[in-house]
Amino acid sequence: MAKISTLSLLIASVMLTATAKAEEPIEIIKPAVITEPEKVELGKMLFFEPRLSMSGFISCNSCHNLSLGGVDALPTSIGHEWQEGPINSPTVLNADYMLAQFWDGRAPDLKAQAAGPIDNPKEMGYTHELAVDTIASMPAYVARFKDIYGSDEVNIDRITDAIATFEKTLVTPNSPFDQYLSGDKDAISANAKQGYQLFKDKGCVSCHNGPAVGGTMYMKMGLVKPFHTDNPAEGRKAVTGKEADKFVFKVPTLRNIELTYPYFHDGSVWSLAEAANTMADIQLGQKLTETETEQMVEFLKSLTGEQPQIMLPILPPSNENTPRPVPFKK
Amino acid sequence: MAKISTLSLLIASVMLTATAKAEEPIEIIKPAVITEPEKVELGKMLFFEPRLSMSGFISCNSCHNLSLGGVDALPTSIGHEWQEGPINSPTVLNADYMLAQFWDGRAPDLKAQAAGPIDNPKEMGYTHELAVDTIASMPAYVARFKDIYGSDEVNIDRITDAIATFEKTLVTPNSPFDQYLSGDKDAISANAKQGYQLFKDKGCVSCHNGPAVGGTMYMKMGLVKPFHTDNPAEGRKAVTGKEADKFVFKVPTLRNIELTYPYFHDGSVWSLAEAANTMADIQLGQKLTETETEQMVEFLKSLTGEQPQIMLPILPPSNENTPRPVPFKK
Repeated sequence: MAKISTLSLLIASVMLTATAKAEEPIEIIKPAVITEPEKVELGKMLFFEPRLSMSGFISCNSCHNLSLGGVDALPTSIGHEWQEGPINSPTVLNADYMLAQFWDGRAPDLKAQAAGPIDNPKEMGYTHELAVDTIASMPAYVARFKDIYGSDEVNIDRITDAIATFEKTLVTPNSPFDQYLSGDKDAISANAKQGYQLFKDKGCVSCHNGPAVGGTMYMKMGLVKPFHTDNPAEGRKAVTGKEADKFVFKVPTLRNIELTYPYFHDGSVWSLAEAANTMADIQLGQKLTETETEQMVEFLKSLTGEQPQIMLPILPPSNENTPRPVPFKK
Repeated sequence: MAKISTLSLLIASVMLTATAKAEEPIEIIKPAVITEPEKVELGKMLFFEPRLSMSGFISCNSCHNLSLGGVDALPTSIGHEWQEGPINSPTVLNADYMLAQFWDGRAPDLKAQAAGPIDNPKEMGYTHELAVDTIASMPAYVARFKDIYGSDEVNIDRITDAIATFEKTLVTPNSPFDQYLSGDKDAISANAKQGYQLFKDKGCVSCHNGPAVGGTMYMKMGLVKPFHTDNPAEGRKAVTGKEADKFVFKVPTLRNIELTYPYFHDGSVWSLAEAANTMADIQLGQKLTETETEQMVEFLKSLTGEQPQIMLPILPPSNENTPRPVPFKK
């Protein structure tokens, strides 16, 4: 009888745990599984390659700095000739979990995204043709393309494929919150647990869900009250042309949110507490008390995971066939 | 008798080797010996820290890129608000072997050098006070200063001390030429050996000597014929005030010269062959044949050593006490 009772309890406990887990709106981030290490390495080189820019000075890592949570930590980015970018640079960390890339989702995936800044006159200011010529001029690069893609052709498709393959490895597993979800109930503080409960109860999870705590849908910025900004970005409307999509943006990931300030697509808010309050107010029509705000921030900080450990790549030298950078107007 | 003969030969051989080694004007670069790993790690963080600049965008690594031989591979550097720098950025690799820092030697050592760009309005455009406030605002940094320096005071002296300590580890041992000097006679090609012989015979070694193949003295640029340039830098004259020091610059290191193009203090020459010919011409009054040029270049390329393996540092997040970057004029 005692035996049966213990077994019953065990089964009930397992079922409860399973149910609880299935109901969690946030999923654990898993470590990257690297199946093509040579392509990842090539992609890393290209990610750090400033010669993909007209100036020879700006690389992917300039605005998606892997020392700084995969962002530049500026309201909007600095581009070619110090031009001011139009929008806040989203983090490259866990970006493969996003349903699409850029704030307006205009690129379907990381590969398509990677092509954008290279020939954007306000970002890297180069052309795809010159980018290809630059990489193809260096025998050490060409040898890698041949090994990986089976021929020594360098083209923008392969360049962006390699960059995207590297970026897919940039995940941040094992955050305190993931440890908590995995069953270690002491991995986060009581305050953080309260914050998580609030996060669910207030309705934040209706948009911020999935492994990246965001990136699963588009949503209007200013759902119940307008969001005031000088930033002219119109969000999805720029992609779909529909008036209903005005100010509809991709819901950003909250993973590593402590690192990816300033917040919102206009980068206007530096404080996580203020960002949480603004979201509660204009998206959900709710006010957070001071205690609730503290708890929410403590929960959000528990989403900071292990940052990718990156060995800085050593890039091959330019030679007489490499297009020369043009850092300054003649 | 046979035994004595063998011993005599051995002694004679050792003596000859010792004599030959003592006569070599280039010395082997030794791997870095790290005695203060915590300080090196802190210095690495600060070396990659863009928040030491007004914009939050420029770090030491921007112009001394450790992916690119410790330089930016541009004629002159890009500074705050895309200002054009006055002179070619010298490599940080093996820089501790230099008798002084900067092309004109105005800083006695790496620590003094590191302070320069931070508050240079054309480079990082910040102030030492704001740089200190920035670093001191982050508890994760302060804890490191306390561990290393015995108190939690952050000041520019400690910041630059840590950066310099990291930079001292940036040496590039085990180049093919060093392997050759160490006794592996097959480590460099016959052409490179001819190039080295020419390097000595033509007199290049009179300036380019020591472990860094340079950096041991100052010398006039345009010793026997004038060097034509638009660059207004006057070299040592700016430090000493003496007319005789006009156009006298620190002799640059030739270590990793294949990586540290473009060449000369004005960054005007992209080809190593052209640089070698110009030097032979205007410093030594000599012409190199085509074959000699090839041999010289092959020797120079054998000076590329093992590049430092750098794990990208993860920097602590800013908080409400951290001065905000000012990337764009208001």
